[in-house]
Amino acid sequence: MTDKQPRTGPIERQMSRRSMLAGAAASAAVPVAATTVGAPPATAAPGNGRGNPNRGQTRRITMYAEEISGGMIGYGLAPGEATVPGPILEMWEGDTLEIELVNNTDRQLSIHPHGVDYSVDSDGSPLNASFNEPGERRTYVWRTHSPYKAEGGRWMPGSAGYWHYHDHAMGTPHGTEGIRKGLYGALIVRRKGDITPDRQFTVVFNDMTINNRIAPDAPLYKARLGERVEFIAIGHGNTFHTFHMHAHRWVDNRTGMLEGPNDPSPAIDNKDLNPGDSFGFQVIAGEGVGAGAWMYHCHVQFHSDQGMAGIFLVLNEDGSVPDGAQAALDRYRDGG
Amino acid sequence: MTDKQPRTGPIERQMSRRSMLAGAAASAAVPVAATTVGAPPATAAPGNGRGNPNRGQTRRITMYAEEISGGMIGYGLAPGEATVPGPILEMWEGDTLEIELVNNTDRQLSIHPHGVDYSVDSDGSPLNASFNEPGERRTYVWRTHSPYKAEGGRWMPGSAGYWHYHDHAMGTPHGTEGIRKGLYGALIVRRKGDITPDRQFTVVFNDMTINNRIAPDAPLYKARLGERVEFIAIGHGNTFHTFHMHAHRWVDNRTGMLEGPNDPSPAIDNKDLNPGDSFGFQVIAGEGVGAGAWMYHCHVQFHSDQGMAGIFLVLNEDGSVPDGAQAALDRYRDGG
Amino acid sequence: MTDKQPRTGPIERQMSRRSMLAGAAASAAVPVAATTVGAPPATAAPGNGRGNPNRGQTRRITMYAEEISGGMIGYGLAPGEATVPGPILEMWEGDTLEIELVNNTDRQLSIHPHGVDYSVDSDGSPLNASFNEPGERRTYVWRTHSPYKAEGGRWMPGSAGYWHYHDHAMGTPHGTEGIRKGLYGALIVRRKGDITPDRQFTVVFNDMTINNRIAPDAPLYKARLGERVEFIAIGHGNTFHTFHMHAHRWVDNRTGMLEGPNDPSPAIDNKDLNPGDSFGFQVIAGEGVGAGAWMYHCHVQFHSDQGMAGIFLVLNEDGSVPDGAQAALDRYRDGG
Ligand SMILES: [Cu+2]
Ligand SMILES: [Cu+2]
Ligand SMILES: [Cu+2]
Repeated sequence: MTDKQPRTGPIERQMSRRSMLAGAAASAAVPVAATTVGAPPATAAPGNGRGNPNRGQTRRITMYAEEISGGMIGYGLAPGEATVPGPILEMWEGDTLEIELVNNTDRQLSIHPHGVDYSVDSDGSPLNASFNEPGERRTYVWRTHSPYKAEGGRWMPGSAGYWHYHDHAMGTPHGTEGIRKGLYGALIVRRKGDITPDRQFTVVFNDMTINNRIAPDAPLYKARLGERVEFIAIGHGNTFHTFHMHAHRWVDNRTGMLEGPNDPSPAIDNKDLNPGDSFGFQVIAGEGVGAGAWMYHCHVQFHSDQGMAGIFLVLNEDGSVPDGAQAALDRYRDGG
Repeated sequence: MTDKQPRTGPIERQMSRRSMLAGAAASAAVPVAATTVGAPPATAAPGNGRGNPNRGQTRRITMYAEEISGGMIGYGLAPGEATVPGPILEMWEGDTLEIELVNNTDRQLSIHPHGVDYSVDSDGSPLNASFNEPGERRTYVWRTHSPYKAEGGRWMPGSAGYWHYHDHAMGTPHGTEGIRKGLYGALIVRRKGDITPDRQFTVVFNDMTINNRIAPDAPLYKARLGERVEFIAIGHGNTFHTFHMHAHRWVDNRTGMLEGPNDPSPAIDNKDLNPGDSFGFQVIAGEGVGAGAWMYHCHVQFHSDQGMAGIFLVLNEDGSVPDGAQAALDRYRDGG
Repeated sequence: MTDKQPRTGPIERQMSRRSMLAGAAASAAVPVAATTVGAPPATAAPGNGRGNPNRGQTRRITMYAEEISGGMIGYGLAPGEATVPGPILEMWEGDTLEIELVNNTDRQLSIHPHGVDYSVDSDGSPLNASFNEPGERRTYVWRTHSPYKAEGGRWMPGSAGYWHYHDHAMGTPHGTEGIRKGLYGALIVRRKGDITPDRQFTVVFNDMTINNRIAPDAPLYKARLGERVEFIAIGHGNTFHTFHMHAHRWVDNRTGMLEGPNDPSPAIDNKDLNPGDSFGFQVIAGEGVGAGAWMYHCHVQFHSDQGMAGIFLVLNEDGSVPDGAQAALDRYRDGG
């Protein structure tokens, strides 16, 4: 159950999403057994709609915090659908998201976002008495804004970014137990004009795990050759990590792409991913390198050796498994 | 006494500063007991003067390294006024700062800056025999410069940045004991046109402490709703950390603000803060989120749980404590 | 033998390089004994050629992985010339590099690059059965590309960057033993118009060592006052580090220089250097600060105290040792 990463897309797609969540799950990480990926689910993937179609709309969703198998606790968009990580939540700058969080556990917990605007009531911290008691329903409101002009030609930042959300109340006043058990997920705020991807994956380095799993059960991410794939990387827990992906690279800026030919930002393929950090980027799957089983892993040697390594499986354009990839998956499963 | 963070402003304000240091201290971190903040001290805060009013002037100050309570050692701008962290030192690109350091301890120590220009005599390291013996007075000279054109359209960097200074001689040739005891502070070099803030705070993650203190005695930073507040974050010691602030964010570039609408730099609210690192940014206190008790903390879970967490208290515009904030402060003091 | 850092320059200089490798080595780190540096080796240093003189050419080199003294294993461009770190490999965007790797050890090993394009055959990982058995010769192909336009005014990144290469097969499927023993080196991909330096040095923080050595035997880097010196910094192993250099600074972007007066990137002199990370920059040796013995070190206090510190020796313009520098080198050698 931890493989599913349903997501809430921008508002215009929200109406039809709920009934499609099972389909959405199929596009996310799946166990190690390479099979043909079906067509991208029409509603789960944000499609290739460009620009910001809404103007500061308010959307209301309900999220459920629940125990799942293996001692984990996750967030979900429907009862019985909690996952680790939780659903990818998306907003456009200007949007407001009202989240009614239903606590279906017997522990106190909350949802605390990074990056967006909220008042102390929605802080998600015991400090501000902002959390759900066991069984309680509570609404958290997240707002966003665009950059605006300050003095001297400078601009104050907008809300756009690859952010995340997590518990801030279970176990300690900082949610240490809730986070350890899986109460975390990705939050994306897009700016007008941002490119939306064909597929999305959340990768959380949480202590010595990836999404609370380790090899050979670390997430297997699948895409077809040429698809635009978005990764959202998040760090949690108590150890330091570095996220590395083979044969793909990105720009170390807001979007992961150059803003133009003179953008000074460096291209990287390895980035520190420490607790509370998050970043995101889009790659064209297999571009210039071909289909195949590409490793992603923590580059701290003992961490990868101890299981912080998984596979980004780039399928052929027709969805078939490329030559040699099944053998690689078999080696991965056997610890090689 | 470690709460005081006096600072030296740009040269034009220097003349009147010395007599105002007591007032300056009041604007900095204070013990956990919410009270109304008085008007911003006219001389301690850099005010809202814009641009670079000076042209490569040379300023001379005297700093004193002294023992203070609790086994700490700090830098100060007058005898008996040492603080941890030391005073915020500010320069404009082009300025020279001559620091006569008076060592009022019985240990060898020095002052070593990041970012600025200095000859080997002012290196602050035993390697270059650049330190103060016990009781010794010694002058260190820091120079700065603007960016200048290199080949191919590129420019070599100027000195502007959020830097820091620290001991490099006590205990080991790298000043490990001096730094542990509190011999560190912020150094800001501004570029012509940079925006100056209404208030400034130095946040140093030094091993498992914030400014050599932990919760519930970690620094309490206060500002009024709407004030422009500058934070200078510095890492020291032997452990890795990540600095997170609730409900406020900044741009991960030189100033913490976008240089324009096309600046590709990401907005973040969590940044790695490891030994020797420093960065700074300005926020509008409570903007879009309101007054209240906002947490800042290390996002490494065990670190925040063990006391690396404090409060940025955003007061109402009239300086009064907002509803609920005193309760939050009480919870913080009680370990909640 | 570990001091030598030969390098392969851009293609146009490749033809004459092989016979000059002994000369190239002399320009790199040398033991602690200050002597006059000879004229920059004409072929080893990239000189000051500007722009990209080639158009997607393919170059073929042979590299040898061999045991060297002290239990280390290195890469070299000729038999018996393996070094730690290995040679600096350079490409221009558009180039292809074919590396025939000769494994002269009795262990399995590989060469895995960061940043460039390669198919699964050249992945260098056991996952993709891409490694050399003992005694085996195997060819790895690295390709590069320029940035290109995506939608919405954005550009996908090119290959230019300060990258690195390393073993991915010895000891564990992630090459943990090979990396520990020294199988790593710098890989630079330049973009048309990039400025080439007069000297280059690779600095690898590998666990608690610098280039598998510690003080007083850490690398001594030498340059004359005013020379353009390029540093490529790489992290490896299992611990976190921060790279700091005294009296010199760089811009935290792709080239280490501002792209223009409005480049928002910060200037820094301390940067996190964790496993798998790499960055590079160019400084003008001693500019604004003068000749002398300037420290570079890990800023994690215990790490520098335990030997992660070395010297960047800036000689006078005529190559003579500046006043006081020999005394500093002596102090360094004596542990001061
Ligand atoms: Cu928090
Ligand atoms: Cu130092
Ligand atoms: Cu790898």
